[in-house]
Amino acid sequence: MSLLLVAQHRDMKPFRDAILEKDSNMDVEIWPEVQDPRRVQFAVAWNQPKNLFGQYPNLKAISSLGAGVDHLLADSSIPDPIRITRFVAPSLSDQMSDYVLTAVLNLLRNTEEYYRQQKQSEWKAVPFFSKNDLAAGVMGLGELGRDTAERLQMNGFKVNGWSKSKKEIDDVVSYSENELNEFLSATNILVCMLPLTNETEGILDLKLFKMMKQPAFLINVARGEHLVEEDLIYALDTGLITRAVLDVFSKEPLPDSHPFWSREKITITPHIASLTNPKEVAELLVENYKRLLSGMDLLYEIDREKGY
Amino acid sequence: MSLLLVAQHRDMKPFRDAILEKDSNMDVEIWPEVQDPRRVQFAVAWNQPKNLFGQYPNLKAISSLGAGVDHLLADSSIPDPIRITRFVAPSLSDQMSDYVLTAVLNLLRNTEEYYRQQKQSEWKAVPFFSKNDLAAGVMGLGELGRDTAERLQMNGFKVNGWSKSKKEIDDVVSYSENELNEFLSATNILVCMLPLTNETEGILDLKLFKMMKQPAFLINVARGEHLVEEDLIYALDTGLITRAVLDVFSKEPLPDSHPFWSREKITITPHIASLTNPKEVAELLVENYKRLLSGMDLLYEIDREKGY
Repeated sequence: MSLLLVAQHRDMKPFRDAILEKDSNMDVEIWPEVQDPRRVQFAVAWNQPKNLFGQYPNLKAISSLGAGVDHLLADSSIPDPIRITRFVAPSLSDQMSDYVLTAVLNLLRNTEEYYRQQKQSEWKAVPFFSKNDLAAGVMGLGELGRDTAERLQMNGFKVNGWSKSKKEIDDVVSYSENELNEFLSATNILVCMLPLTNETEGILDLKLFKMMKQPAFLINVARGEHLVEEDLIYALDTGLITRAVLDVFSKEPLPDSHPFWSREKITITPHIASLTNPKEVAELLVENYKRLLSGMDLLYEIDREKGY
Repeated sequence: MSLLLVAQHRDMKPFRDAILEKDSNMDVEIWPEVQDPRRVQFAVAWNQPKNLFGQYPNLKAISSLGAGVDHLLADSSIPDPIRITRFVAPSLSDQMSDYVLTAVLNLLRNTEEYYRQQKQSEWKAVPFFSKNDLAAGVMGLGELGRDTAERLQMNGFKVNGWSKSKKEIDDVVSYSENELNEFLSATNILVCMLPLTNETEGILDLKLFKMMKQPAFLINVARGEHLVEEDLIYALDTGLITRAVLDVFSKEPLPDSHPFWSREKITITPHIASLTNPKEVAELLVENYKRLLSGMDLLYEIDREKGY
């Protein structure tokens, strides 16, 4: 029986090494080098090729290499009985909270404008927002969203949170699904941390931007498909959105010719807000592999109906 | 009796308005428009012209407009009996902590490198430091330094602190004056928040950089005179210092021709880490003015011998 690591454009050897370091008896293979497809029982996948999973008749479970599972849910080659799990770890949440906090502080303090001024040897103080002027709002209060909301709050920001079911977080004003309007009208800096589902795809559109409190800023660290790209361009051009920080895109790597690259009001990072640490994920994978073999519940299994 | 506001290259009207809003009976003048020099009892000064204060025979106290008082202590026209106070406020500390936290996070997460890549439409993840890899060290644990050390710690950083007398701060490893070597050899990201005195002038020199833990980073938010500029250039060129973030300079505005401007490893901001809010300072000034007139102790009076 084997555990199969599947990813495109990513070196999976550090993950295999970390798993073997945890348990040297494990049989770990890296796609496409598979000795015998019938032996594959557990797979770990990120950006996997289309229609791959039909080939493994004894596959029982697939784990995402990250917090999101949309790439697995959208893959129709994965038969229904196959269980899907995702990766959750303190370091993932912490990196994500750091990324969002950094983005928010840089928006507040005009970091990018000062970099630009330095290139011109220009010494000029730029008016800046105080924390009291702007409220942050986190959409999606799962493990990552909750940690980010808490970190922003701890650093003195006013924070709103919006999620399907209302969450209780100290000093965070929480809104439920049908209070989206109220949430947006109290939020200047919108941080998208939603899972990607049929309901959330394209949620960041012009209609939503118009409901936000002015001045409005957007940070997307969830999935590119949450955003209607042409609506963001329009919102930036008309001043509806002042600035956007994007770590995720509907097509990654972002194509050379994409208009986002050259927009001064958009800050782009190459999907690096939170990166999976091989050592940390190895621990969870070994645990879940053993649980699978002994017929126990899996950790961080997702509900394929709900999509998270 | 009047209160005199003195500053060069700075609009002092918002400060006068804020003081009058606090107490409309105050007599507030803005230098150089002084009706009768004999009536000036209390002055507020920032970047004042040289040898000004000899002209006011009844001047009893001078307040700095910021946390630093080096510009007042270095002014030989201020007779000894004149008391000197400084400005301390939660918003000053909070802005400073935000600035340092932003700088530290940007160093960790390669923000500037991603801005550069975006200009080239380049999609490439850059290896980044984890919080566990680098320890921050705050030099100077006064009101501002203490708040910054606490904020970095609260955000998950390992933090050392160095000050003349050892300070007790939760989860911050504190070193005293004669433990500078130990402090530096445990510190990767050095944050200078010292007062400028004869003892601290030029403290950031090659000898000190050599004692730091590698990789080493420098953040200076105190005074330009703490830094030996040519030593920093040498340390950056030889890789002894990886990157520096500077908000203060020995000559401000930083001259057009200064070599710092064009260095890729130096990030420059125009002395904006922490800016005095007129409303907040007005409260303290009115209070201290009244205390002076009634012969009471002044708030935040400094010891002119010690220099802080």
